[in-house]
Amino acid sequence: MPGVFQDFALATVFVSDAQYNRNIHFDSSPQAVRLYLLYNHWAFKVLLYFFIMVNLSLAIFEEPAVFLLPLWATMLVELLCLIVFTARLVHYAKVIPPVKFWKDPKNICIIALTLVDMIIYGSLEAAKIYCVRWSRVLRPLLLVNVTEGRQLRRAFRSIRNALPQIFYVFLLFMFSLLVFSLMALKLLGKRNLKNIEGYPYFTDYLEIVFQLYVLVTTANSPDVMMPAYNAGSLFTIFFILYILINTYIFMSVFLAVVYNSYKKYLKEEIRQLVRAKRYKMARAFDVLQEQKEGCSQPVLTQASWNHIVRQVRPDITDAHRDLLWSVCDDKNQGVIGKVAFVQLADLLNIEVITLKSRPHPLQNLFPTIYLSAPSRLICRLVQHRGFVIAFDLIILVNAVFIGLDEENPLISNSEWGFLALYMLEILLKLYVFEPRSFFSRHSFWNWFDTLIVLSALIATIINSALKSSAGYTSRQILDIVFVLRVLRLIRVVDSIKRFRIIINTLIRIGPAILTFGQLIVVVYYVFAIVGMELFKNKVKFFDNSTHPEHAYCGNPLLKGHSFAQLGYCKNNFNNVVSSFILLVELTVVNQCDGFASVTHVSARIFFVLFHIVVVIVIINIFVAFVLEAFFVEYSVDKSQLQTSLEKKIEELELAVAQYVTLTTGRYIQQWFSDSKYPEDETNLSPNTRIQAQKTR
Amino acid sequence: MPGVFQDFALATVFVSDAQYNRNIHFDSSPQAVRLYLLYNHWAFKVLLYFFIMVNLSLAIFEEPAVFLLPLWATMLVELLCLIVFTARLVHYAKVIPPVKFWKDPKNICIIALTLVDMIIYGSLEAAKIYCVRWSRVLRPLLLVNVTEGRQLRRAFRSIRNALPQIFYVFLLFMFSLLVFSLMALKLLGKRNLKNIEGYPYFTDYLEIVFQLYVLVTTANSPDVMMPAYNAGSLFTIFFILYILINTYIFMSVFLAVVYNSYKKYLKEEIRQLVRAKRYKMARAFDVLQEQKEGCSQPVLTQASWNHIVRQVRPDITDAHRDLLWSVCDDKNQGVIGKVAFVQLADLLNIEVITLKSRPHPLQNLFPTIYLSAPSRLICRLVQHRGFVIAFDLIILVNAVFIGLDEENPLISNSEWGFLALYMLEILLKLYVFEPRSFFSRHSFWNWFDTLIVLSALIATIINSALKSSAGYTSRQILDIVFVLRVLRLIRVVDSIKRFRIIINTLIRIGPAILTFGQLIVVVYYVFAIVGMELFKNKVKFFDNSTHPEHAYCGNPLLKGHSFAQLGYCKNNFNNVVSSFILLVELTVVNQCDGFASVTHVSARIFFVLFHIVVVIVIINIFVAFVLEAFFVEYSVDKSQLQTSLEKKIEELELAVAQYVTLTTGRYIQQWFSDSKYPEDETNLSPNTRIQAQKTR
Repeated sequence: MPGVFQDFALATVFVSDAQYNRNIHFDSSPQAVRLYLLYNHWAFKVLLYFFIMVNLSLAIFEEPAVFLLPLWATMLVELLCLIVFTARLVHYAKVIPPVKFWKDPKNICIIALTLVDMIIYGSLEAAKIYCVRWSRVLRPLLLVNVTEGRQLRRAFRSIRNALPQIFYVFLLFMFSLLVFSLMALKLLGKRNLKNIEGYPYFTDYLEIVFQLYVLVTTANSPDVMMPAYNAGSLFTIFFILYILINTYIFMSVFLAVVYNSYKKYLKEEIRQLVRAKRYKMARAFDVLQEQKEGCSQPVLTQASWNHIVRQVRPDITDAHRDLLWSVCDDKNQGVIGKVAFVQLADLLNIEVITLKSRPHPLQNLFPTIYLSAPSRLICRLVQHRGFVIAFDLIILVNAVFIGLDEENPLISNSEWGFLALYMLEILLKLYVFEPRSFFSRHSFWNWFDTLIVLSALIATIINSALKSSAGYTSRQILDIVFVLRVLRLIRVVDSIKRFRIIINTLIRIGPAILTFGQLIVVVYYVFAIVGMELFKNKVKFFDNSTHPEHAYCGNPLLKGHSFAQLGYCKNNFNNVVSSFILLVELTVVNQCDGFASVTHVSARIFFVLFHIVVVIVIINIFVAFVLEAFFVEYSVDKSQLQTSLEKKIEELELAVAQYVTLTTGRYIQQWFSDSKYPEDETNLSPNTRIQAQKTR
Repeated sequence: MPGVFQDFALATVFVSDAQYNRNIHFDSSPQAVRLYLLYNHWAFKVLLYFFIMVNLSLAIFEEPAVFLLPLWATMLVELLCLIVFTARLVHYAKVIPPVKFWKDPKNICIIALTLVDMIIYGSLEAAKIYCVRWSRVLRPLLLVNVTEGRQLRRAFRSIRNALPQIFYVFLLFMFSLLVFSLMALKLLGKRNLKNIEGYPYFTDYLEIVFQLYVLVTTANSPDVMMPAYNAGSLFTIFFILYILINTYIFMSVFLAVVYNSYKKYLKEEIRQLVRAKRYKMARAFDVLQEQKEGCSQPVLTQASWNHIVRQVRPDITDAHRDLLWSVCDDKNQGVIGKVAFVQLADLLNIEVITLKSRPHPLQNLFPTIYLSAPSRLICRLVQHRGFVIAFDLIILVNAVFIGLDEENPLISNSEWGFLALYMLEILLKLYVFEPRSFFSRHSFWNWFDTLIVLSALIATIINSALKSSAGYTSRQILDIVFVLRVLRLIRVVDSIKRFRIIINTLIRIGPAILTFGQLIVVVYYVFAIVGMELFKNKVKFFDNSTHPEHAYCGNPLLKGHSFAQLGYCKNNFNNVVSSFILLVELTVVNQCDGFASVTHVSARIFFVLFHIVVVIVIINIFVAFVLEAFFVEYSVDKSQLQTSLEKKIEELELAVAQYVTLTTGRYIQQWFSDSKYPEDETNLSPNTRIQAQKTR
């Protein structure tokens, strides 16, 4: 039955699209469906991301480079990347209807523009004419615009939607800044004050505007105030008012506006997602439906349902699938209707961990020994609360030892003792607990522990081997050993219940922070490329402090400037790595005096723009996101679907004594990760774990 | 009828207590009620606050002083203040039941301790033995603890309630800080790095902990990172991770926790307030109730009701009182029951502005001229949108002229032209609009305009008079002139509608920011007193830059230190004014390196404590408050009571054509001012204005 097989394939695609919130309108011809399945294959995605990474990392090898490669090499690699992107794009064009494809020509434009730029640059470079490789700023946009960058695109869209609101507050903020600057000019401009470098203080209007803008970032506090303060204490009233209004009130208003419009937009977006998901599920049902006698409505049989679920999630166990079916087929009719089928996409997203509580393998091998009195005593001891406390104490003692000087032989040898203790702990736990449940996918801390202790053991052994054989210690390996030792201490947090809630929230927002990281990388990359074009080699860092130009960063304009005096020379735009580090520093404190004094206006405009984009918009969205995650954690109730699944698990336990609900993870809205929004009335299911243990 | 009079007095007190959310259980004996009325008299309150201010400002005259007064003088004034406080306390004791009085002995303790300290200090000083005036830190506590400091006390209570939650996050934050410090010690301690001042870098654990704590405040970024970064770019990963986790994530979690528990506590507090208010209103009703034939329930007649309202709010017009009565007596029965009476307290808080739309006085005086064609043309012109735009343009041109050099005679003379134009604008408006409605209590911008223009006119005239007669210009008057000129520019904001919403929200949270200001003053005062005791004269400022000690702030330990080099000498604890300014600077950026190098440990502990209290707790509450104000502004609906009042106004307009609802101000929750919380289901009325205009 090729037709039926075709139907199943189509339905599978619909269901998995719905489950992963993919909203792609693909062609439903048999060939297109096969191509679409291929398009969604994980290998292609990995390949795509690999080439995007290669393309982005080209900045390391291009002028100004960390490791300079010849032009032909980087050009060739970039061409290869472009070919891969084009191939992916052609594949995409085959999958979706042509009208849809031509509606979003952004990727085509990026590739075409890059190609044009490469040709122009290559030919001009061959003719030795200087020219800017401007298409490099387009590279990170591919990361946003590929079909897999859904979450990132959503983040960008929501920023775009918050912009009009931010804009009005920003205008008002600028007005306030300009008025305060005018007042400063009138009050302080004529008093012949000098700043600490001996230049006239607050005599130029644009200079004042810039200085007061920087004061909002708190970077030049209290320096900008000191000359006025030294002239008279009353002038501080001006600065205090300014800081109150512009630094505290306006920055809070920015946060409020960003938070508010972001949240509003998100709700709308999720409503659309839910609609798309329902549409896909309904189409899958339409493909699979059968007319059964005795039913007025079309239905789906358990066999077809099983087939689909097995196709979509091959990793799901039979018991778990039976459980899901029993939730769908609430009345035990053997068939389900459309409504019950539509919720399957959400059901699949609720993680149910089925742990078979098998007997310990040692019990099978040596039953008499494992069940003997001393063995039982060990089991009781390890499971006792005191065992945890004892090891927490050991960790604390270990912390003190780490803090002491490791060149003392007593201290360095004690490390072996601690390692042995930690190994003993893990072995004891493995003796007591069933290994497969101990290393189940969601036992974060068990994995953490074992990995850290094992790596520390290996690194320490390598280190001692090197020391005793070759007689020297590798600094790199020693660093790794130290980091691993310190990381081990984190484990102590898990034993305190109050901390665990906070930590778990933080771990849960981890994936979302990764998406946020991508967002930051895109913005940083664009600013880094532009910054390198504008400011490369304006400031130089000399590793050798006896170099004659070391004292002023290789730029005579910086002679005697605090930028050089404070040793900031390595904060420059001379390659992509130092650019990124400089941009991080600017995010924390907008300290750009050095560049401003070397290049004047362009650096100031660059830094103000960077501050507006990164601090006012993106950091505020990040803060809003963390706030929301914690508010949800403090207030959330379970979704209806989740509750019904749990009820089912409990029912089954009563009936078959098969499942025991152990712990129910609380869910959290994931803004940047595939959006599951608990406040939504449509009951979009959260990415939740219900841990069930098979007792027999 | 002395009994009836007594009843009315008692009921009046209950109602006004309920209206102003006073929750004092006073004695209801006739004498106590009279005393209680006296206790609430505004003159006594003003007197009390005056003496609290005097008591607080004593710090200016005491050693270390701005203006040193002899010890006997400050002691005498403080004694006088104490006597006033004691008198007020005795008065309070007479008013409330003794049990209640002795339950809260905080004020008695403060006064007694201050007295004891004064005696000890005076006698030791007489014997020339050095001793600390420790009771000075208690002074601001009076501001919190007097019966009038209700809003401030509420703010403190809510902080106290948020503390346990903050504490756990803080512990986790400290743990993270300690672990990161340990890692920094292990990674960087053995590399023989030097910081910019040539000292060993990251070799001492406590030093690292302190430096990394300061990094959270962003004060020492990027300095703290530079030596490691210069040694190797990979070390920046450590710092970036640290900043991400501790500066961004933990600080956001603090904000989330503060916001959340503050809001939760506030709701609880308001529920209690509403309960107390209802209780007081019910008691007032019980005192006044009458049994009327035909009514099963006790009722209140309109006559008694009128009497009470006239007593509680003598400023309310007859028309307004009739309106309120018609809202209470919904069915026009001439009497009201308990339920209708209880809502009176909230009704009185809704501001209804009754503007009589009288004809212009000029129309009465010179009807033919005022109603002639040219006069009408003027009226139309002034009311035209173009008039506003024209004056906005004039303001912008004025801004440019202000920015130009005022020593150019053309520019300085143009000022007269602008002043004339602004005066003309005000006069024209007064010609067109009825003066009493133009200067009504709530026409903020009209008042603002007139005051600014008139003061600018007067100051400019005085300035020119001085210049032409005495031949010199007073710098102070010139400053005032400049400030007034610049302030005039703000007016332009009001003509842009989008800005008006934001500005109005900001104006509305103004009173709350004042309460917040009190909170900050209390905390600053305590820290300033402690700081002065610890650090006075450690750092000295010399006005004369040729002084030999000028280059190192009078402290040899600061020789060559960046604190002295950057000219921070005036940032010291040598008197209360400079202490306050220093604390403001510390709030913005925790820059305490200078003091740390002079006094080592004590300064560091002091500054870290200050940062925890002010930035982590208080600034976060402030941000939470601004956030909440804007969220409410974006989302709020009117309360039920307000709606019913508006409906009544509309009904009356239909019936009697007497009231026209012009604009309805939106309300805002006022956290720090007397709390009116719109989300509360009890319908606590907001401090709202309903503007009604009498048309006949």
